[in-house]
Amino acid sequence: MPTCELITIGSELLNGSVLNTNAQFLSRKISGLCIDVTHQVTCRDRVPDIVACLDTAFRRSRLVVVTGGLGPTPDDVTREAIAQYFGSGLKFDSEQYRHIVKYFRSLGRGTPPITRREAFLPEIAKPLVNRFGIALGFYIWKHDKLIVVLPGVPMELKRLYDYSVGPLIKKKLRDRPRNYTLLAKTIGLNEPEIMRKLGRSFFRGRAFDFGIYPKVGEVAIRLRCADRRLMTQLKREITRALRPSLYSFSEESISVVVGKSLVRKRSTIAVAESCTGGLLAKILTDVPGSSRYFLGGIVAYANKAKIDQLGVLPELLRAKGAVSREVAQAMALGVRLRFHSSLGLSITGIAGPDGGTRTKPVGLVLIGVSDRAGTRIFSFRFSGDRSHIRRQAVSKAMLILWRWFGS
Amino acid sequence: MPTCELITIGSELLNGSVLNTNAQFLSRKISGLCIDVTHQVTCRDRVPDIVACLDTAFRRSRLVVVTGGLGPTPDDVTREAIAQYFGSGLKFDSEQYRHIVKYFRSLGRGTPPITRREAFLPEIAKPLVNRFGIALGFYIWKHDKLIVVLPGVPMELKRLYDYSVGPLIKKKLRDRPRNYTLLAKTIGLNEPEIMRKLGRSFFRGRAFDFGIYPKVGEVAIRLRCADRRLMTQLKREITRALRPSLYSFSEESISVVVGKSLVRKRSTIAVAESCTGGLLAKILTDVPGSSRYFLGGIVAYANKAKIDQLGVLPELLRAKGAVSREVAQAMALGVRLRFHSSLGLSITGIAGPDGGTRTKPVGLVLIGVSDRAGTRIFSFRFSGDRSHIRRQAVSKAMLILWRWFGS
Repeated sequence: MPTCELITIGSELLNGSVLNTNAQFLSRKISGLCIDVTHQVTCRDRVPDIVACLDTAFRRSRLVVVTGGLGPTPDDVTREAIAQYFGSGLKFDSEQYRHIVKYFRSLGRGTPPITRREAFLPEIAKPLVNRFGIALGFYIWKHDKLIVVLPGVPMELKRLYDYSVGPLIKKKLRDRPRNYTLLAKTIGLNEPEIMRKLGRSFFRGRAFDFGIYPKVGEVAIRLRCADRRLMTQLKREITRALRPSLYSFSEESISVVVGKSLVRKRSTIAVAESCTGGLLAKILTDVPGSSRYFLGGIVAYANKAKIDQLGVLPELLRAKGAVSREVAQAMALGVRLRFHSSLGLSITGIAGPDGGTRTKPVGLVLIGVSDRAGTRIFSFRFSGDRSHIRRQAVSKAMLILWRWFGS
Repeated sequence: MPTCELITIGSELLNGSVLNTNAQFLSRKISGLCIDVTHQVTCRDRVPDIVACLDTAFRRSRLVVVTGGLGPTPDDVTREAIAQYFGSGLKFDSEQYRHIVKYFRSLGRGTPPITRREAFLPEIAKPLVNRFGIALGFYIWKHDKLIVVLPGVPMELKRLYDYSVGPLIKKKLRDRPRNYTLLAKTIGLNEPEIMRKLGRSFFRGRAFDFGIYPKVGEVAIRLRCADRRLMTQLKREITRALRPSLYSFSEESISVVVGKSLVRKRSTIAVAESCTGGLLAKILTDVPGSSRYFLGGIVAYANKAKIDQLGVLPELLRAKGAVSREVAQAMALGVRLRFHSSLGLSITGIAGPDGGTRTKPVGLVLIGVSDRAGTRIFSFRFSGDRSHIRRQAVSKAMLILWRWFGS
């Protein structure tokens, strides 16, 4: 199997300002192509440091992916370092420069002289035109080895990878073992629960790679193996073990899946949020075309807003408190009636760090769903900090919505 | 200045299953001690790979921190690799073994035989007793250099660092320079604009480290230098060059700064969002205690919601369209009146990918601010994808809010 080494460049990584999500993204993508990532190296924006890392990497790996240090400022020296390592000069790419000028023109601005640097690349390199920003990526193919150099801005890097780097690697490195991959996305279970449900026998005596990727409220599983029949069998076993939590075998997010259900059922939704402060509405509207089913939401942060905007009775708030089943119910019903939607969803809770009491601790969250048939309330107790509690609450709301449609 | 290299071990990092938060944590802590982290390296759980990384690191750095591969299973080979590199055997630490036995007894369980491995460490090493788990950390002090080896479980690593590793580094590496750091956070400028405003003379002939960290709508600058008077001078120059965009010299976010202004002015706010779908409300309520000034918001995604929830006139929507100065104005005013807040802020625009026209293209966003004195409308044209446009719109809204208070 070909091997790969990643070199991520930048003092923002070395002083801990920035989490190295690029290394994770690239490792996952490249591993998925049956290329073993054996080293990830981060070094400073200094020519000798970059050259030394490049030398080590180029000796031991077929594929080297370098990211960062392609910006316009003087501390961006990656293109110079790479040119120096290969004993090459730099050339000016006029097409890229036109792209930069056009980019700034589209913003109604002149082209800053400093950005001219971003149109240069090593003479022996070929450009990877970046339609998603102005930093130019490039690659070098030498001694049957591939070196790919990408900008460090995560969004540009991801798009550039998907658009041109992935296909390039596939084309250039053909001696990868054949393989089949599977992605399974789950919601509502954590990593140990998934492992227990799969059981030890799942892993025994069969040759496949297994990756498990938890994030708040969700876990994704990625499998890779050389045997198609085995993959079919594994997919069947995963479906059997995880069905009530398994929402997709593709990259689509839970918001997309829920959106599709809403469209299929010709339903509309409106949401009333307290502690999550708009995050649920934001997640639902992340989806292009969500205006087909998402009518709107009320962020009722103050109690007065719950009364005025959602019709929650003041007496109810006084008697039961804002974080109560009764208020969650009134909010879900209220938002549904005010927006004339088929579904109303509410979240009220205590995200902390303050505001908790003995009977209503930080992390207590109530979620209500209202439709014509009635209202159901779900109660949760989350742990973690404010941001984590808010994200868990929204994830549970999405789980509830997904199950509401019997998916 | 002493330099440091991190070696993080584990295939879960190399296949992208796990984000390397340990590297960020350690880098930030160690940089804070005025030790330059020059390399972060991740390698596989294989003795030759670890030995090779260790050799390179030990040659070029005064401090080497190794994490991972100290567990009980056969693929945890870090202690063997380190013993081999130093030509040392392994010794059994009976105190550590008693700790392991005690740990399992506290869980009401017997000690699994496999965990006996976790009581071994290289003969030349000293133990770093881990009160937070059962994996034993250790360190080696040789040729005036320090090697620290820590378990990879993030929580254990963090606690062990704070409890014993930080103090150990301070004690052993005394020749750390005194230095001064500065963080300056800006909003509303991009990286090239910042560089142009600072000018070339800022960088000429003075000894300091400069880091620039862009994210959507914001740029942070970090400086470090040994000379206190120079730092005072640099801070003055940064203030002069960037003042209208400089919102903080601390880690606090723009939401926190805007929140403080609102509290200081005894003002309250409510927001009306269309294309950002709740993201502005979410950002404002990221701040603990935001209930002091944030009353709530309306996500008026459908036109009907703009009419019913915000009092926008149907004729206005028909005549001008939802994305117009007039509707932005009506939304800002409407949300202020409905929530009885001192300030009303509105965002309406076209986040795409669909819905753009020639006169109203994707990326067109209008932001309105209403207070008792009147309403002002700001118009923007953003580029990028849906998510990027939404984030830029919210960042501009925060900028407008911040400037509203004359900050």
